Amino acid sequence: MAHITILGAGFMGSALTIPATDNGHCVALWGTWLDDHMVEALQKGDPHPKLRLHLPPAVAVYYSTDLAEALRDADLVVNAVTSDGTLPVLRRTFPCLIPGTPVMSVSKGLLRRRDGKVDTISVNILEHLPRALRGKFRLVVVGGPSKAMELARRVPTAVLYASQDASARRLARELFQTAYYSIGEIADVRGLEICAAFKNAYAIAVGLCDGLVKAGRWEATNNTKAALFVQAIREIGTLLRSVRGDAATLTGLAAVGDLFVTGVAGRNRTFGEMRGSGMATDEVVAELQARDELTEGYAAIRMGRAFVRHRRIQNLPLLEALYRIVYRDADVERELRRVVFGDPAGGQ
Amino acid sequence: MAHITILGAGFMGSALTIPATDNGHCVALWGTWLDDHMVEALQKGDPHPKLRLHLPPAVAVYYSTDLAEALRDADLVVNAVTSDGTLPVLRRTFPCLIPGTPVMSVSKGLLRRRDGKVDTISVNILEHLPRALRGKFRLVVVGGPSKAMELARRVPTAVLYASQDASARRLARELFQTAYYSIGEIADVRGLEICAAFKNAYAIAVGLCDGLVKAGRWEATNNTKAALFVQAIREIGTLLRSVRGDAATLTGLAAVGDLFVTGVAGRNRTFGEMRGSGMATDEVVAELQARDELTEGYAAIRMGRAFVRHRRIQNLPLLEALYRIVYRDADVERELRRVVFGDPAGGQ
Repeated sequence: MAHITILGAGFMGSALTIPATDNGHCVALWGTWLDDHMVEALQKGDPHPKLRLHLPPAVAVYYSTDLAEALRDADLVVNAVTSDGTLPVLRRTFPCLIPGTPVMSVSKGLLRRRDGKVDTISVNILEHLPRALRGKFRLVVVGGPSKAMELARRVPTAVLYASQDASARRLARELFQTAYYSIGEIADVRGLEICAAFKNAYAIAVGLCDGLVKAGRWEATNNTKAALFVQAIREIGTLLRSVRGDAATLTGLAAVGDLFVTGVAGRNRTFGEMRGSGMATDEVVAELQARDELTEGYAAIRMGRAFVRHRRIQNLPLLEALYRIVYRDADVERELRRVVFGDPAGGQ
Repeated sequence: MAHITILGAGFMGSALTIPATDNGHCVALWGTWLDDHMVEALQKGDPHPKLRLHLPPAVAVYYSTDLAEALRDADLVVNAVTSDGTLPVLRRTFPCLIPGTPVMSVSKGLLRRRDGKVDTISVNILEHLPRALRGKFRLVVVGGPSKAMELARRVPTAVLYASQDASARRLARELFQTAYYSIGEIADVRGLEICAAFKNAYAIAVGLCDGLVKAGRWEATNNTKAALFVQAIREIGTLLRSVRGDAATLTGLAAVGDLFVTGVAGRNRTFGEMRGSGMATDEVVAELQARDELTEGYAAIRMGRAFVRHRRIQNLPLLEALYRIVYRDADVERELRRVVFGDPAGGQ
């Protein structure tokens, strides 16, 4: 039996307690300072407010003030806070971490580094490591199509764990793999992170098509959705090559699989649907924030564009169109047409 | 202005009259002996019974008895009948065809050749060419995500036209490309046909997941759908390599795009949903036949398996699972789990 500490008591952090405890491990689930209401409900014995189910008895729940206690004796630590929360939480975690303890991150996104450049979460984490952990930090990154609501209900799910440290990723897989949670191991950390971050942005494009239907523009737009899906995969392929990612990452669970699930279900799609139906971005953001459902895709478009500009990556017309639609209130249909029909001016 | 003859007055044949006439061409739409009710409605001035809209005035509609007349002066002939109907219709067409006239085929599927082996439609057509047309037959094959209902309503659509004859595919593209119908040209005819035929089979897998939800097994199964989508792409990749198709065909409109649209909408998905909800295959087939909605995916599983067996192609566990589910009434959930979790015995 292992001790697993999960940082972040939101959707995915809490969902991961299910396979971990099904495997007989004991889990410390630590809520951030934003998760107090979640921790309170769980400590009272109520269902998890987001997942809407009871967590197993082998899960001990900790308030944000009890981080050191939650981390005691951890054989593996999981970072499951939002991308924005990752560095603030990990900086508090590092002093309590025994060097060599594997850290697994399910957080997806891009962050701004100290020098102002935007990069993936693993690069940012490594940049902030204290001296005591340098060279002894074993990071495993998680990607692939996995809705927390479904994983928590033991719906058959297949994901990828990436690490350059083969023994760390094998340990992580052994702790979490179950009869409903299949874990593939790969070494392509950067490729997996690029797919995970950008798929949130591109899923908004699929949602925009649903918005055009909602606005009464057409009865259905599956042809357009499929064309945009393919364009998104093409652009993720370009992004993957820019970080020297593995070409196989593109056709597998990380890109095609995760974009599929994010495009057909979830909050990024919803964001796109609302914007595509004619709402201005400000209204969409306000409404989703009020529901505590503002998605990572919104920031991913802006951060993704910054990532691309620094690196001078060309030929990403869909990402550019998404930026104009979401941050410049450009016309949805005109922008999407330009992408599908390859307007030569649509690239920049 | 060109003369285009379209054989088959069903969904796609009729939908293609829209871009053709928008480009100012005149179209002869010929109905097979199964399309009499469609032709009758159109000749009366009623909307097309399947597309539920009026076809443009520049479309002349012909009964099956008037094939020679429909083919007169054709600059290009489109085969838009079902895969089963293709050879019977083309055998009647060949004597009226001026050698060198391009023939474009939107029919998708696999057919049994004279020697009993199963192969793509282009191979079957070439096998049945009369002496007069041999060496003078310019075939263009169409693939990619294109629901006829949406194309007919001018929803932005992007497809691929494949031919080894660059001038034939360019001519076809020039005749049909419009501001809402984007056409890419490729040379990989066999690769495109393999994607088009097998995606119908694999889309049923996505539908099966919806069926499990309908049966109350889970609230949602998007994780499983995404895992199966990726497995389908992996297997289509194996099939593509077996015919020496272009690797780029896999990530583009032909495979990823067409599987997306077929998996999220349409009759193959419906077939899967009905079977997955607990109905036996016989019941599903009877009900869909009664509605005239039995899909090509049903036969594609059986024909696809024959294709694979002849060629001894290995490692297609999802295709094998679909065969057992649809033709051997195997348990849906057990079979899909074996695919997602890579049971080593699941390959054969």
